[in-house]
Amino acid sequence: MAGELAFIARLRDLASHPAARGLNDDCAVLEVGSETLILTHDSLAQGVHYLASQDMADVAWRLVATNLSDLAAKGAEPLGVLIGYTLGRDDERFLDGLGEALRHYNVPLLGGDTITAEGPRTLGLTAIGRATHRPVPSRAGAQVGDGVWITGAVGAAMIGLEALQSGDHDPALSLPYRRPDALLAQGQALAPLVTAMMDLSDGLLLDAHRMGTASGVTLAIDSAAVPLAAPEQRRNEALRWGDDYQLLFTLPPSAVPPVAAYHIGTVEAWQDAPLILDGQPLVDANHLGWQHEA
Amino acid sequence: MAGELAFIARLRDLASHPAARGLNDDCAVLEVGSETLILTHDSLAQGVHYLASQDMADVAWRLVATNLSDLAAKGAEPLGVLIGYTLGRDDERFLDGLGEALRHYNVPLLGGDTITAEGPRTLGLTAIGRATHRPVPSRAGAQVGDGVWITGAVGAAMIGLEALQSGDHDPALSLPYRRPDALLAQGQALAPLVTAMMDLSDGLLLDAHRMGTASGVTLAIDSAAVPLAAPEQRRNEALRWGDDYQLLFTLPPSAVPPVAAYHIGTVEAWQDAPLILDGQPLVDANHLGWQHEA
Repeated sequence: MAGELAFIARLRDLASHPAARGLNDDCAVLEVGSETLILTHDSLAQGVHYLASQDMADVAWRLVATNLSDLAAKGAEPLGVLIGYTLGRDDERFLDGLGEALRHYNVPLLGGDTITAEGPRTLGLTAIGRATHRPVPSRAGAQVGDGVWITGAVGAAMIGLEALQSGDHDPALSLPYRRPDALLAQGQALAPLVTAMMDLSDGLLLDAHRMGTASGVTLAIDSAAVPLAAPEQRRNEALRWGDDYQLLFTLPPSAVPPVAAYHIGTVEAWQDAPLILDGQPLVDANHLGWQHEA
Repeated sequence: MAGELAFIARLRDLASHPAARGLNDDCAVLEVGSETLILTHDSLAQGVHYLASQDMADVAWRLVATNLSDLAAKGAEPLGVLIGYTLGRDDERFLDGLGEALRHYNVPLLGGDTITAEGPRTLGLTAIGRATHRPVPSRAGAQVGDGVWITGAVGAAMIGLEALQSGDHDPALSLPYRRPDALLAQGQALAPLVTAMMDLSDGLLLDAHRMGTASGVTLAIDSAAVPLAAPEQRRNEALRWGDDYQLLFTLPPSAVPPVAAYHIGTVEAWQDAPLILDGQPLVDANHLGWQHEA
């Protein structure tokens, strides 16, 4: 982890262009002519981000959906994807799932690279979109007095992964983990109203901690207000579990979200920590979620 | 190989958007507002596209240069890159080389993803550019009567890799393999004039075969006219060796290239093969070069 953080710190030095947003955001935001492009690249490594035994159609879906979820957090309309694919087990299934996901989101495959490699595979996808609203939402805009909102429940991916690992007798139970949904329509509807927005890839608490840090404010969250897709006794775990891909956003106190959403807290002036949970300041980001990404 | 070709054929079915150019070109060409974006993604796999023992600074350079070379073939001006990086050996050296390449080409790092994974690494990079001339050159435009041209010698990467593998007592000898050059300025100067253009990543003969196929014409190449960066007795090998990243292009007979270039043949009406070398039709693409990419 230390090595990864040091690496990302040096990478950040290289990403000095304003479009890179200091690598602190979900996407790059690049002005080109009269358009604002939104760009993101995420990878999935076998054995780390997906199970070696998993249906490759689900892995393909996940690869598309996680990248489109980053675009959703920017209120972007997807223009297409480029794929970096390593051939291996069940390539046909991968293509099945890739086709299903691209049709579901009505996003064209624009290009990419297919290679042969040794060992466990790393699959990459780049998604490109256009902003539907400017300024483009960032993680850094939360204002004191805003409400903190979430589009839906957390914990579904946790339950889904466990179902998958235990034999998946009810495929509907594992679906939220296997086929996450990128909330593109919600992101576009919210973009003109939010002061800050991000997608939840690494866990509500960790991602809220990042939003507070980026915005220089304290997000005070009431854990009991967070909708749960898991048994109540697992609330603490669900708040720290990643892969749910809900949108976390802040709204001025008078604004009403135009999509289904839950009010889970308020934005307060900085109080020694970027996140307060049930009155308890959480200074350290460790153990709040899944830490892996630049 | 059969699996890879079948995979790419199915991938092509998914890439039905005109911007994908049927996956037959070096890049996607996407109209957005008043701009024409050029997009490409290439991966390098350890043990396949680079030596496991290689200096990671050179690998980083290569990752940047090979993608920018695709933009060069479109006459594009680079706008930035996104990186998909897997942590491992010599991450610091990778960052050194990445920084050197980005500064050399004056291209910003816009974003990406840093992950941890198991086994040999796959590194990916997406480059995005804007067209400097429209229509954007493709592989498919070669016209009967055109001249066939190349920007420089082939064989330097072959000699360079051998120097590297044999202990690299003269680092200048391995430089063309370790640090290939993306011919961005040449590509931009040529774009308004060429009828077809591509970069040579997989060998002159294989890439010329592809250009002939895409254009529905026969490229008649005089092997003795091809400039060589290797001993004469290795001419046949050098014509089939990849990684030289010269630009191959066709020009109307009256046009004069605005950059250093060598006339190596002519475009003829289709004669049973996309490529004729020294009067010999080469129907089959096998054994003409390095076949690995979509």
